[in-house]
Amino acid sequence: MSSSVITNIGELVTNDPAAPDLLGIHRDAAVVVEGGQVAWVGPALEAPAADTYLDAGGRAVIPGFVDSHAHLVFAGDRAPEFAARMAGTPYAAGGIRTTVAATRAATDEELTGRVAKLVAEMRRQGTTTVEIKSGYGLTVRDEARSLAIARQFTDDTTYLGAHVVPEGSDPAEYLALVTGPMLEACAPYARWVDVFCERGAFDEDQARAVLAAGAAVGLKGRLHANQLGPGPGVRLAAELGLVAVDHCTYLTDDDVAALADSGTIATLLPGVEFSTRQPYPDARRLLDAGVRVAIASDCNPGSSYTSSMPLCVALAVREMRMTPEEATYAATAGGAAALGRDDVGRLTVGSRADLVLLDAPSHVHLAYRPGVPLVAGAWVAGTPLGA
Amino acid sequence: MSSSVITNIGELVTNDPAAPDLLGIHRDAAVVVEGGQVAWVGPALEAPAADTYLDAGGRAVIPGFVDSHAHLVFAGDRAPEFAARMAGTPYAAGGIRTTVAATRAATDEELTGRVAKLVAEMRRQGTTTVEIKSGYGLTVRDEARSLAIARQFTDDTTYLGAHVVPEGSDPAEYLALVTGPMLEACAPYARWVDVFCERGAFDEDQARAVLAAGAAVGLKGRLHANQLGPGPGVRLAAELGLVAVDHCTYLTDDDVAALADSGTIATLLPGVEFSTRQPYPDARRLLDAGVRVAIASDCNPGSSYTSSMPLCVALAVREMRMTPEEATYAATAGGAAALGRDDVGRLTVGSRADLVLLDAPSHVHLAYRPGVPLVAGAWVAGTPLGA
Ligand SMILES: [Zn+2]
Ligand SMILES: [Zn+2]
Repeated sequence: MSSSVITNIGELVTNDPAAPDLLGIHRDAAVVVEGGQVAWVGPALEAPAADTYLDAGGRAVIPGFVDSHAHLVFAGDRAPEFAARMAGTPYAAGGIRTTVAATRAATDEELTGRVAKLVAEMRRQGTTTVEIKSGYGLTVRDEARSLAIARQFTDDTTYLGAHVVPEGSDPAEYLALVTGPMLEACAPYARWVDVFCERGAFDEDQARAVLAAGAAVGLKGRLHANQLGPGPGVRLAAELGLVAVDHCTYLTDDDVAALADSGTIATLLPGVEFSTRQPYPDARRLLDAGVRVAIASDCNPGSSYTSSMPLCVALAVREMRMTPEEATYAATAGGAAALGRDDVGRLTVGSRADLVLLDAPSHVHLAYRPGVPLVAGAWVAGTPLGA
Repeated sequence: MSSSVITNIGELVTNDPAAPDLLGIHRDAAVVVEGGQVAWVGPALEAPAADTYLDAGGRAVIPGFVDSHAHLVFAGDRAPEFAARMAGTPYAAGGIRTTVAATRAATDEELTGRVAKLVAEMRRQGTTTVEIKSGYGLTVRDEARSLAIARQFTDDTTYLGAHVVPEGSDPAEYLALVTGPMLEACAPYARWVDVFCERGAFDEDQARAVLAAGAAVGLKGRLHANQLGPGPGVRLAAELGLVAVDHCTYLTDDDVAALADSGTIATLLPGVEFSTRQPYPDARRLLDAGVRVAIASDCNPGSSYTSSMPLCVALAVREMRMTPEEATYAATAGGAAALGRDDVGRLTVGSRADLVLLDAPSHVHLAYRPGVPLVAGAWVAGTPLGA
């Protein structure tokens, strides 16, 4: 089995849970990769010999970003709706129905090509693990094929038939579909089940029903909740001990306490607030209360069409009062935890060799240099991007 | 003379002043380049034959960004100071003196290499014209060598000896130096003279003196003004009929009226407000009053270490209430006007062939997809990036 070493790493972020500091930083370090995994981590001067050798030139290496929330299976875009929203002018033709119609009308090849393009774009920006949801099909056929396509790109696929009640459908009938035949068709392709639990989408009882039906066929639950206003979703997630609940923009003190008690991860999605001009969630409040926090892109054509985890880190620091250290952790180890995984989001012996070489001396530059494409190289399971 | 055509351009932004719309958009267009200039613009189906041929695949082509405000000649970085500022904790060792000390200590080779790296980074993000200031040397030798280095990368070099009074200097003596021997040493390498006219830096009388001394040796004036609070700088720029005045964050109604009357361009630098958590300037107010607006990066290690004009466009839309159309214009034609140039910032017959191919169907995606590296290709005077 061939091995490779990346050496002369000025700052290596390991996220080692055993380290005294949050990021488990090593300076003047090296990493040895073998069989797609991290085989050794330590001082560059002590690195064992390997078959191939890369000099990081004193730059920083971090674990690949884990983007735990993305809606990549769709057709069309909604640029005119975005422009109208930014100008404060009405735009009647917009909304999720536009995307649902375009997605249903697209061929499998078109949808697959679009997901491939977005995943490649994410890789170039350092995202080495991505969760992908359905939710723009909203028919048995279109949800199932969305997930079958998503599954070609990730194991972390999420069934989101309960995104919205499609136009013209009866809510009770649609819920029966989502918890019945649609679930049955989708479950073979999905690891997770998700519900948009928000006023105007699905209420608490409906969310419970969808999560219970998913659990009965082996899907683990997650929720979209408390994005547009206060609501029951976050407390429900905590009560059910879900791994993660996403958005968390409008939280009561009880919500925050429930998250801290349950250990459910609050996944914050600052690209949404950037693109909708909504107020940002208060990460500081969550962290200070002991809540575990992840950052993800929510990449989707309606409310957050960024695929950039570095931008999300910068926004987390600028707008949500996270430190660069906390934001980097939340975008890597945090995302991994939000997917219930410990094989990614860290660079410790035995973890998957998902590495990102930054064209910068430190992870701080992700926030210090917003918008700048700082990813100089990325490896997924030891394989370099583009190889 | 060999010619090339870029065809199948879904949306071509020309910024043609004769067009009825701000961006002079052509759809399904082609551009012919010859001798480094735009030789023809029109419908793809009518494009003349050319020696080489590129299919834009229906994507958008825009004029290269003109970044009219950047401080690229420096050594060191100030990441720890940034991290402390974001965390709200004191950081005694920071400030411009850190950068001045590191810049003075650096070799010419080191400074040149750093500017080359930043300019290359800008090019990859679609910036095809950049202004570069001195201002971290603050001695005759260090200001002159900063400009001599800058001149290797751009004709739009700006003498900013009047950045701050260096530590330990007497203000009156330093002003005499800036308007005397330092100016004399710097003028051969500079097109512009600039002053940081702000409380704590240089006052109105000092700014007048520096601008007058520069004008006497043929340097055109520009100003940093009204960044940290209200002040006389913007009105001074308008009174003197300067081409541009930069920052413009704190403006009175009289300031706005003066800018509208004089035609002086207000260059807004949203990367600064992003990186310092200051309030953003109100572009909407300026545009509605008839003021001409440019957007630039202010790339520098202290207050805005972004080199990303696409991020500045996105911030202009999100935070300064510009439309995507206005922000795209301000980052291209606006920047050109702020440098007194009409050969760049537009794609009309005879203009320099500085083009950017976006991996997107429309300029709107610059704001709609914040942080995503959308530049699929760039040409400077007809030469492709990397060629
Ligand atoms: Zn979502
Ligand atoms: Zn400046």
